[in-house]
Amino acid sequence: MCQLLGMNCNVPTDIVFSFTGFAMRGGRTDTHHDGWGIAFFEGAGVRHFVDHQAAVESPVAELIKRYPIKSKNVIAHIRKATQGHVALENCHPFVRELWGRYWVFAHNGDLKEFAPTLNGPYRPVGSTDSEKAFCFLLQELRNRFGDTPPALSLLRAALKELVAAVAVHGTFNLMLSDGSALFVHCSTKLHYVVRQHPFVTASLSDEDVSVDFSQVTTPEDRVAIIVTEPLTTNEKWTAFAPGEFNVFVDGMSIQER
Amino acid sequence: MCQLLGMNCNVPTDIVFSFTGFAMRGGRTDTHHDGWGIAFFEGAGVRHFVDHQAAVESPVAELIKRYPIKSKNVIAHIRKATQGHVALENCHPFVRELWGRYWVFAHNGDLKEFAPTLNGPYRPVGSTDSEKAFCFLLQELRNRFGDTPPALSLLRAALKELVAAVAVHGTFNLMLSDGSALFVHCSTKLHYVVRQHPFVTASLSDEDVSVDFSQVTTPEDRVAIIVTEPLTTNEKWTAFAPGEFNVFVDGMSIQER
Repeated sequence: MCQLLGMNCNVPTDIVFSFTGFAMRGGRTDTHHDGWGIAFFEGAGVRHFVDHQAAVESPVAELIKRYPIKSKNVIAHIRKATQGHVALENCHPFVRELWGRYWVFAHNGDLKEFAPTLNGPYRPVGSTDSEKAFCFLLQELRNRFGDTPPALSLLRAALKELVAAVAVHGTFNLMLSDGSALFVHCSTKLHYVVRQHPFVTASLSDEDVSVDFSQVTTPEDRVAIIVTEPLTTNEKWTAFAPGEFNVFVDGMSIQER
Repeated sequence: MCQLLGMNCNVPTDIVFSFTGFAMRGGRTDTHHDGWGIAFFEGAGVRHFVDHQAAVESPVAELIKRYPIKSKNVIAHIRKATQGHVALENCHPFVRELWGRYWVFAHNGDLKEFAPTLNGPYRPVGSTDSEKAFCFLLQELRNRFGDTPPALSLLRAALKELVAAVAVHGTFNLMLSDGSALFVHCSTKLHYVVRQHPFVTASLSDEDVSVDFSQVTTPEDRVAIIVTEPLTTNEKWTAFAPGEFNVFVDGMSIQER
């Protein structure tokens, strides 16, 4: 199994604090040492970093911890290989383009006997079930909506249905973003916290690091952090229910109407 | 205008030496300070680094100069904006997937009145003529060959024809790779050198750095470096002819038959 980390905000925010704790699980406080990756949306563009080395040993992870890249949507992943060998092409997150937007996808879990018909333009490059599922989701979105991106409510409804169809094949904790929204599905384990005014001091559970968010934010800032296991010891994390599908926009969970 | 750097080798090789000289042109020895990028194939996977900062000031470029990533196909680009504003989504190289392979593309030049019909699955995310041309090339390859990648000789012939059709719109110096071959077209200016046994000591023209390649290679190694302006003062660079289309495989130019 793997671990996932996502961030969705109303203003571009750096993920240095959360990533510092998360990266410790890539070989130090946990055993996810078969590669890692992170993708940051910046405007319409994406910065995409993947490495087949353990996150705790990777010079690229070291850069991420020191270089405060500001983003409204980030997805990160540390891998413990279950399907697909340890290789760069099997590192999450994966990136593809649909409707003139980049889409970023990462998955934690294991899909059994999942062999969707891929007859559209998206084909896996690597050998993971995860990339296959990502190609399937984009193919089906394109089949449903053609060349025109739908409104968020329609997109959410379509993705919820498609994700549920894939999730019957196994564990499908996932994060997906097109740069404006962060779509999250929980099969087994995911937690989130929304950081907003009044901000507190948070302390990482995986490393001896604290940050007083009130010193580095404005009262209008809002940041949702979604992660497999809570990252801090003194914040109130909410667990996703198994089967829950949620969408984060501007640092807030959009409740289904 | 921009500058391009490509590398194609028969064994995975690091590009630290050539990139060190090339990056100097991103704001120091030349004025290409509107972003930069580099993509390395590693197996079927791609490491893709883009930054809207000048290459001489970018922490990511600093990482590339220190972290010897080994690759058989690399494409790098430093940008001086002509079309499209300075933003991450307009930084080359661009990456898309076709036939379950990643494709990497970078362009130097300017296309006028270039408005191809893009009715396939590839749409530009940014606002450059370059990304539009890349989407057009992949769309047309998919139209010609469907879901099955053709043999290299057919691919080369198709690309040569497609590239010539785009090049009538302006300056179209380009590099394109699917991880196995590096396709190069010269409209105005490109040079290449093949480094092979017996290896010599090479000295950068943009910085006071030399390397004795005989110390870091085996006699079987072969590396082709393709670049807008020669990078070293004591190697014999060959200029491409205007209109020349060439393909490099295993560090060698494949002459047309």
